[in-house]
Amino acid sequence: MAQRAPVIVVAPDSFKGSLAAADVAAAMARGIRRSQPDADVRARPMADGGEGTLAAILAASAGARRLRVDVHGAAGDALATDVAQLADGTGVVEVAAIVGLTDPAGTAVDVTSRDTRGVGAAIRALLDRGCRRLMIGLGGSSTNDGGAGLLAALGLRFTDAAGRDLAPTPAALAALARVDASALDARLRDCELVLMSDVNNPLTGPRGATAVFGPQKGVAAADIARIDGVLARYADLVEAVLAKRAQDAPGAGAAGGLGYALQLLGAAFHSGADVVADAIGLDAALADADWAITGEGRSDEQTTMRKAPWVVAERARAHDVPVSLLSGAVDPAALPVLAPPFAGCFALPPGPRTLAESLAHADAWLADRADAMTRLRLGCRTSR
Amino acid sequence: MAQRAPVIVVAPDSFKGSLAAADVAAAMARGIRRSQPDADVRARPMADGGEGTLAAILAASAGARRLRVDVHGAAGDALATDVAQLADGTGVVEVAAIVGLTDPAGTAVDVTSRDTRGVGAAIRALLDRGCRRLMIGLGGSSTNDGGAGLLAALGLRFTDAAGRDLAPTPAALAALARVDASALDARLRDCELVLMSDVNNPLTGPRGATAVFGPQKGVAAADIARIDGVLARYADLVEAVLAKRAQDAPGAGAAGGLGYALQLLGAAFHSGADVVADAIGLDAALADADWAITGEGRSDEQTTMRKAPWVVAERARAHDVPVSLLSGAVDPAALPVLAPPFAGCFALPPGPRTLAESLAHADAWLADRADAMTRLRLGCRTSR
Repeated sequence: MAQRAPVIVVAPDSFKGSLAAADVAAAMARGIRRSQPDADVRARPMADGGEGTLAAILAASAGARRLRVDVHGAAGDALATDVAQLADGTGVVEVAAIVGLTDPAGTAVDVTSRDTRGVGAAIRALLDRGCRRLMIGLGGSSTNDGGAGLLAALGLRFTDAAGRDLAPTPAALAALARVDASALDARLRDCELVLMSDVNNPLTGPRGATAVFGPQKGVAAADIARIDGVLARYADLVEAVLAKRAQDAPGAGAAGGLGYALQLLGAAFHSGADVVADAIGLDAALADADWAITGEGRSDEQTTMRKAPWVVAERARAHDVPVSLLSGAVDPAALPVLAPPFAGCFALPPGPRTLAESLAHADAWLADRADAMTRLRLGCRTSR
Repeated sequence: MAQRAPVIVVAPDSFKGSLAAADVAAAMARGIRRSQPDADVRARPMADGGEGTLAAILAASAGARRLRVDVHGAAGDALATDVAQLADGTGVVEVAAIVGLTDPAGTAVDVTSRDTRGVGAAIRALLDRGCRRLMIGLGGSSTNDGGAGLLAALGLRFTDAAGRDLAPTPAALAALARVDASALDARLRDCELVLMSDVNNPLTGPRGATAVFGPQKGVAAADIARIDGVLARYADLVEAVLAKRAQDAPGAGAAGGLGYALQLLGAAFHSGADVVADAIGLDAALADADWAITGEGRSDEQTTMRKAPWVVAERARAHDVPVSLLSGAVDPAALPVLAPPFAGCFALPPGPRTLAESLAHADAWLADRADAMTRLRLGCRTSR
């Protein structure tokens, strides 16, 4: 065992439905210190482009500023939300904080009447502040508008056969006849756009946004084909005007097609957790660490799709740091693929417990479990 | 990390309701070998005097013989049960295998009509084979006869005021007027009796067998005082005849008073888990071990009362071997007292699960959890 106090990186994602990533990290740190009070515990809350991405980046970025901007939610409701401007001028937008699936105002109307104008407005606000590099976290949206709202907010005009303006919603775009890009915000040409996503689906088709993610946003099974057709036609028209194609780009189907619209505007698609790991300086924290703990609400086969714990494991391995998984739940069926990169996969419940109990006690049980893992890995430096 | 393959002792108690101790140990070993295929895993299934004690001692004792004896169950039903004779001649009797709380035949009659004659008969059978040292595991009985059945089987005679023979049951002993010990088996005088128990209650009174353990055996709350009085009067009469007192001895209240009757016959009362640990050679297995894992169905404050995992932890500590707890459940409220002696306390469920699921999947989850703990403690020696 090392003579010096151990250096331990705690880099969990949020536990959806119970704790933000920073709270998860704090609970883990508390547990670690029960037996290793002198440990150098480095909390690096993670995110994957979805909810919590802005908070994770802000928490780890010296000199970053949180900015309040007035936009509209998915249902057109007035919404004061936060974006960030980092010390190097990079702007950060979290889609989940504007058109989030967990926002009751935004989901009060049918998914075919929701749009992403608010995201475009947030980007415009950052452009106004001089940002020419933008990081946009795509996870957790309630919308399925193909990014039409974002494009509308940035200057595109959608009209029907009679020349009437159309709202950028799936319902209205069924009548789309013409796209006018003449007013597209010219500043975007000089702007680097970085997408953060954990979804690499195309815009339309059987693996597209509507078919795969529509149902969880409220798209009825009977409406999938029709709405998918609306988005396909919208995309064809937009692409003809912009003389660019992105429908089939990986991640075009992220955030109900925001991934499509942003890639049309030149955005580069990245794994959300990788971008966040870079933004929060995870590698520097790991460089001289003895051990790391990551985790998420539920770990399963999806975790291997570059979810936050997977990326943390990869970064840790690059630094020869053993990394353990501590999640709310760990699907036993996924262990053949989950177990190999981790120095142990552990779950929260201290015995037979319901999901509700597990959500309610996550903070206490995280500390208990991190304590147990620390005693197993490093022993105990206190008198107890 | 040690260059040689690690030596790991797995010494769990049974997981009541799902797995015998040997099965728990086997599942733990399976999990360990997933990442440490060369590990020297020493399975030392534990017990505490209750169910599984005979199996644990038999499994670890070279030259021990399992003997089938014909006795009676708690309800007087014919019962073929097993006892053991060790290589050194010591006999082993497990009360739970004769008048066990989980035996439907024995519990088919009311607790006031159950008795422990079968235990006395098993002891007699071992005396017949020449045993002069007997280890008797007391846990898990369905009886509350003050050990009157055992004494009757070994020669005591109970009669009423009219001189009529009485059955050695709480119901019949209400009429007890006279005890005759003239036919008490004389071989007992030369016999060393070792009790294995985790109960140190006296025979009667508010901490006695009837008040504390009677209800779980079917004694109605309204009957406790009356039955307690029957046992107190029975004990006074027996003690007068034998000119010896044991009512208040620690453990007199074990196994519904079998602990009383056997101590009257000269038995020495011991912690069951300590006797089993000695019998299975736990110290020798631990002497050069790198790590140990113990566990039980549910760990809570009671565990500290010298339950099997507690004794394993104590023995391991004496050999400077870190020992981890892996139980079906670990009561979070007990962690302040449970956590200190263990290199981590872990529970089975891989997420929110019911008790029924936990019992059904104990084997698989034990292997998964032992795998995770091994990877955390020792890393991985396979390519995965």
